[in-house]
Order: sequence, then C-alpha cells, then structure tokens
Amino acid sequence: MPASPIRKLVPYAEEAKRHGRKVYHLNIGQPDIHTPVASLDALKKMDLKVIEYTHSAGNESYRRKLAESYRKIGVNVDHTEIIVTTGGSEAVMFAFMSCLNPGEEVITFEPFYANYNGFATAAGVTIAPVRSYIENDFALPPIGEIEKMITPKTKAILICNPNNPTGSLYSKEELMQLRDIVKKHDLFLFSDEVYREFCYGAGHFSAMNLEGIEQNVIMLDSVSKRYSMCGVRIGALITHNKDVLASALKFGQARLCPPELGQIVAEAALETPKEYFEEVYNEYIARRDFMVQALNSMPGVYCPMPRGAFYTVVKLPIDDSDRFAQWLLQDFSFNNQTVMIAPATGFYFTPGAGKNEARVAYVLKIDDLRKAMETLAEALKVYPGRVG
Amino acid sequence: MPASPIRKLVPYAEEAKRHGRKVYHLNIGQPDIHTPVASLDALKKMDLKVIEYTHSAGNESYRRKLAESYRKIGVNVDHTEIIVTTGGSEAVMFAFMSCLNPGEEVITFEPFYANYNGFATAAGVTIAPVRSYIENDFALPPIGEIEKMITPKTKAILICNPNNPTGSLYSKEELMQLRDIVKKHDLFLFSDEVYREFCYGAGHFSAMNLEGIEQNVIMLDSVSKRYSMCGVRIGALITHNKDVLASALKFGQARLCPPELGQIVAEAALETPKEYFEEVYNEYIARRDFMVQALNSMPGVYCPMPRGAFYTVVKLPIDDSDRFAQWLLQDFSFNNQTVMIAPATGFYFTPGAGKNEARVAYVLKIDDLRKAMETLAEALKVYPGRVG
Repeated sequence: MPASPIRKLVPYAEEAKRHGRKVYHLNIGQPDIHTPVASLDALKKMDLKVIEYTHSAGNESYRRKLAESYRKIGVNVDHTEIIVTTGGSEAVMFAFMSCLNPGEEVITFEPFYANYNGFATAAGVTIAPVRSYIENDFALPPIGEIEKMITPKTKAILICNPNNPTGSLYSKEELMQLRDIVKKHDLFLFSDEVYREFCYGAGHFSAMNLEGIEQNVIMLDSVSKRYSMCGVRIGALITHNKDVLASALKFGQARLCPPELGQIVAEAALETPKEYFEEVYNEYIARRDFMVQALNSMPGVYCPMPRGAFYTVVKLPIDDSDRFAQWLLQDFSFNNQTVMIAPATGFYFTPGAGKNEARVAYVLKIDDLRKAMETLAEALKVYPGRVG
Repeated sequence: MPASPIRKLVPYAEEAKRHGRKVYHLNIGQPDIHTPVASLDALKKMDLKVIEYTHSAGNESYRRKLAESYRKIGVNVDHTEIIVTTGGSEAVMFAFMSCLNPGEEVITFEPFYANYNGFATAAGVTIAPVRSYIENDFALPPIGEIEKMITPKTKAILICNPNNPTGSLYSKEELMQLRDIVKKHDLFLFSDEVYREFCYGAGHFSAMNLEGIEQNVIMLDSVSKRYSMCGVRIGALITHNKDVLASALKFGQARLCPPELGQIVAEAALETPKEYFEEVYNEYIARRDFMVQALNSMPGVYCPMPRGAFYTVVKLPIDDSDRFAQWLLQDFSFNNQTVMIAPATGFYFTPGAGKNEARVAYVLKIDDLRKAMETLAEALKVYPGRVG
C-alpha cells in the first residue's frame, strides 16, 4: 500500500508546529471557506432520539433531492440510480470493486489524484497510466497514446474533470474522443466530477451526457468541496447501469450505511442559495489569479493557468520535490513560518516523474496565500538542492 | 460479492410496508434505545464554521479520551495505538488489508457475522470456517478442529466476542486456548469486541489482555451498539503492533478521514453516565429473557440462552430459512403485521448449513417483541414449508 503523498509529511508538519512555526497548508484541498450556515443549522434543529443506520444506498429523501439537483444541471437521473457513499473515496472504491476483477486494469492520466492508486491497491486492480505533460498544460493525451495502453485486461478509463491535481478541464471535444474509445472497446468510464462547480471560464460537460455510452458511464461525486464540508464524508456513485448499481449496493450493504449526520447536513446543503456559490466562485478566481501570478514571478518557476478545481501542478527549480517538501518543514523558516506542499512524485505512476513538480492548492485566504508565496519564494532562494 | 443476508430482504420489507403492513425488524441490530442525550447535545453546541477533514487516524482529542476509557476497563493502550475508523466495518477491512495478502486465509467460526464474508471478498482474502453448533450452544470448536484448518496460507483467526450472531461469550479459558494456537503458528488474532458492554452473567475478557501475543492481537471496536448510535459510523482498530498501525494508517490516509460529526458525538459519548448503561443493560436482560422464553415455548423451536450481544440464533421447524423469511414479508400477515428475520444461511459458509435456523435480534421494546413473537408463532403454524 503506497503512502498518501498529501498526508505522509504530516508528522514533519506536526513537529514544525510543536516548535512554534506557522505552517501554511498548500498540500491539501481543505478550503477555509465556510460551510453553508443552513447545513450546520440542520444539525442544531435535528430532533432524532436515536442515530440509526440508514438505507445502505443512503436516505431516500436525500437521494430524491440529490437526483433533482442533478436534473437541474442537465444530468438526467432518478434516485434509484444513486448510491450515497462515505465520501467520494468510497465511490471510487465501489466503482473499482463493482466493475473490475482483481488483476484487471483501469487507464488513467498521470499525474492523477494519488489516492486512486491506494484504492486500486485496496481493490486489487492495476492502474495503467497515460502521461500528460505540464508543457502541454496537462491536456488529455493523444487518443493514439491511450489506445496503445488497452490490453485484454483493460476494463475502464478513469478521469477527474475538472482535474485534481492539475486544474485542467476537459472540453466536450476531448470527452467525445474518450467516448469513442470507450464505445469501441466496451469499457467503463469512471468520471470523477467532484470539482464540477469549480470551472473557470468554460462550462462543465458531464460524462453522464455522452451519448451512446449511457450504460458505461459511472459518475463519482462528493459534497466535500462543493459545500466546503470535507469532514462529513458524503459522496455518491451515479450510473444508469443497473448491474453496477446492484453490485455496488452489495458493497454498500456490507459496510451497512453512509454516515447519517453527514447525510442530514448534505441534504440541507442542497438548499444553499446561489449567492453562496457566486461568492465562493469569485473568491477562488481571485485566489487562483493571485497564486499563479505569484508563482510565475519566481525565477525558474512555471505554473500553467488552472481552469478548474483549486489546485495546480507547478514546476520548481529543485532537485527532488520530496526532499524539498521535507526540508521546508524540517529545516526552513521565514518569519517563523513555512509552507507545506504535496510533492508531485506521488501523483505520478512513472518512477522519477514529477521530481521537479509539486501540487499546490489555493484554498487559503489571499492574505495567507501572500505569506505562503513570500515564504516559498524565500525558500527557493536558499534551498540547497536548487537547480538550473 | 455476496449479498448481505441482513439487508438483502429489504425490498420485500419495503413492499410490505407500502401495503400498510407493520414489519417488526428482528433482522437487524438496530436498537430502539435512545442515543445518550449529552452526545446529541454536543452537535447542538458545536460552533465549527467549516466541517474540515480530520486526522486520518481520527481526532487526537477523541483518541486520547478513547484510550483512557480503554485503560479504565483494563486494556492498556495509548492514543497512538488507535486508528479511528468509519464504523467497525472499516476496522475489519483495515485489519484484513493490513495483515493479509490477497489469497491468504483467515479462520473464523461459523455461523459468523455475515459481512465478514463481504469484507473478505473486498480484501481478496479467504475465509476458512470452523463450524460451531447450536446443539452445543455455539461454544468455541475443539482446538483440534481449529488446528486442522491451518495451512501455510493461514495468517489470522477472527473472533467476535460476545458473538454476533449467536450471542455466545467466550470464557478466559477458551481465549487462552486460542492464544496457544496463535502463538504456536504466529498468527494474528482479530478480536471484534463491539458488544463488550453486553455480557450477561460472566464478565468480558479482552483479547488485548492475552499475555505473550501482544504483537498479534488487533481489537476491532465500534460505538454503534454501545451508545445506540449505529448511524454515526465510528469504530476503531486498536493494536500494540506498530507495523499494523502503519499499514492501516495508509489505508486510512487513502480514504482521508473518518466522519468528523460522528467523532464529535462519539467523543461526547465517552462522558455517558453509568446509569445509562445500567438501564440499557437491564433492559436487554429483560428483552432477552422474554424473547428466549417466548421462542422456546413455540412447538419445534429451540433457542439457546445468549450470554452476550443482543442476538440469538434460533432453530425453527422449517424447510428453508431464506424461503421462510421471504414468505413472512410477501405472503404472511397477522393482525396486519409481520416480522423480518435474518436467515441463518447467510451466516454460514458451508453450503446448506443454517437452513432451519435464523438470527433474531432483541433490540425492540418488550411490547413490540411480544407482538413480534405472537406473529412469528402464528406464522410457524401456517407456513407451508413447516417440517417435523
């Protein structure tokens, strides 16, 4: 089991904090945006006497409202096509376990959300990576490169759109190309759309709306980022494919149910007013613009402009991002503060790839981001492993 | 993936309810006991503005208090030896995935908690069952029978004590015998102790206190039953073995964290006054005595006296417990009510075993249990598949 590149440095960060240093967390997608007040109020108003198990697929009332919310954005599903999961994490696990046998392969594009690798290990399936490149703004690799990876064991393609960690956003045209491959080889298409609300500029096209592969698409979702409630652990698996739903429900029954309190909060969150999202959206645009500009003004640093989510993969003038990340926490201090970044190596499958890249999240207030960027700029000046 | 025998009949129950029939749920361990008020109040008092991810091993404040609560009952652990999980379910999964490679074997005693089978499938490990018998009150099988099952692939023994589904409670002497086998063959001992507080008569002896196998024992726990809060999905994996902790933490990091709201409720629950447990304990004793007496007074029915948990496996004069359970929901009605039971076949690994047995839970008020028992007695009189 591989260690999470996002969390494996936690003990060093804890140590730095124990020594009184302020650590700016650019390593994790934990926004400081407030959870919608109405959702939190739902807990205070709750009059349950017993916190019981819920339906293994999630509360029907929540699933009905969730289906309605999908229909409003043009994804035509009903509540029987939704299985509520314990975070988006479990939705990925259920998709892997329901659609692939141990030893079968899922194609995805590196760099990719590192925990996909952990879920694959847990499910006994193999990740077959096709590489995308920072020089190319992490666009979808050419179709020929993808098809080259298909073997008799290939059962699925997994995308994250908008993308964590790269911030790229696949266009409808790119998705249509994927559709053709999926159809030709009769694969599943797992589409992780948890950052759907965070598309800057172009709109989002859901894989659920790709015609001709309705039975192949499984959408993976989560309320964590949408409503800044990562800790409630509520996600969903959505598909028109009844066989997949039946299989996923068996895994759902084995673990009994998703968390009831999180479901209550998530159901209330569906009433969140539009203004909340507008404010959040504008805030992220401002943070992104600020951070990308700050990064690109550092000598030797290159950061593409992310078009979705709230991450970017940045190229740094360093020898080894793992060493640099650890050094930042262990050995570096500027005004008694430092930054924590996620080494990009953990998001690549290919050994050695991403050694001069890191994932940084723009989930902090601009004031904090400014201090973090100043600190990072100073660090790059004095880091002993600086190159180029 | 096998379907959960506890939940697979849910669609039939939903259908019966749609037709206006009252269904008494004897099939699931969902107590009607109130969740401690102080725990629910913790949610109302909560002043979080953002429901954030927690530490992957769970909030340190909760782990520290939980460790203290274990020390109070003689289980000497500290907070670094605890990983908070999403329900006891995840604790079992983490134990399987951290200690066994795919294809390796875990010995357990049938009938066993059916979802162990689902977790084994998900983790790619094999269950090696040793049978226990209702005629023998489901006592631990003879040591010789257990040793016969050990192969080079055997890596662990899994017990549930007190036992779900049988209600049996292993004595210190039985556990010492298990210890000898564990030590001799250097196995892991997974000890599911989620029903620890529900021991009637004899006290509970934790596997954590077996001398000489401190590095082999992994305790699996949950707050679901202890505080009647099944829906919060908070459990724990506890062990002195640092390698297992490190491996389990990696799986924990992949799924990010256990639910924050559940952790808040569970932490508050540790302050539950003794009176709550005394009241609950006395209530379960009364329910057990009532139900066992009612069952044994039905012609052709045999129910051993459970010594722990809140289940019993009962022998019924029927042809097939799956058919009977479905018939109860689809075709039977007495005073416009029926009962839902869990066919014991799903708790056995051996095909055909448990066909004339069912697991019934005594988690309902005595008034409801009385109606359920009257209904079951009537059902047994008219069931077309009655035998003997």
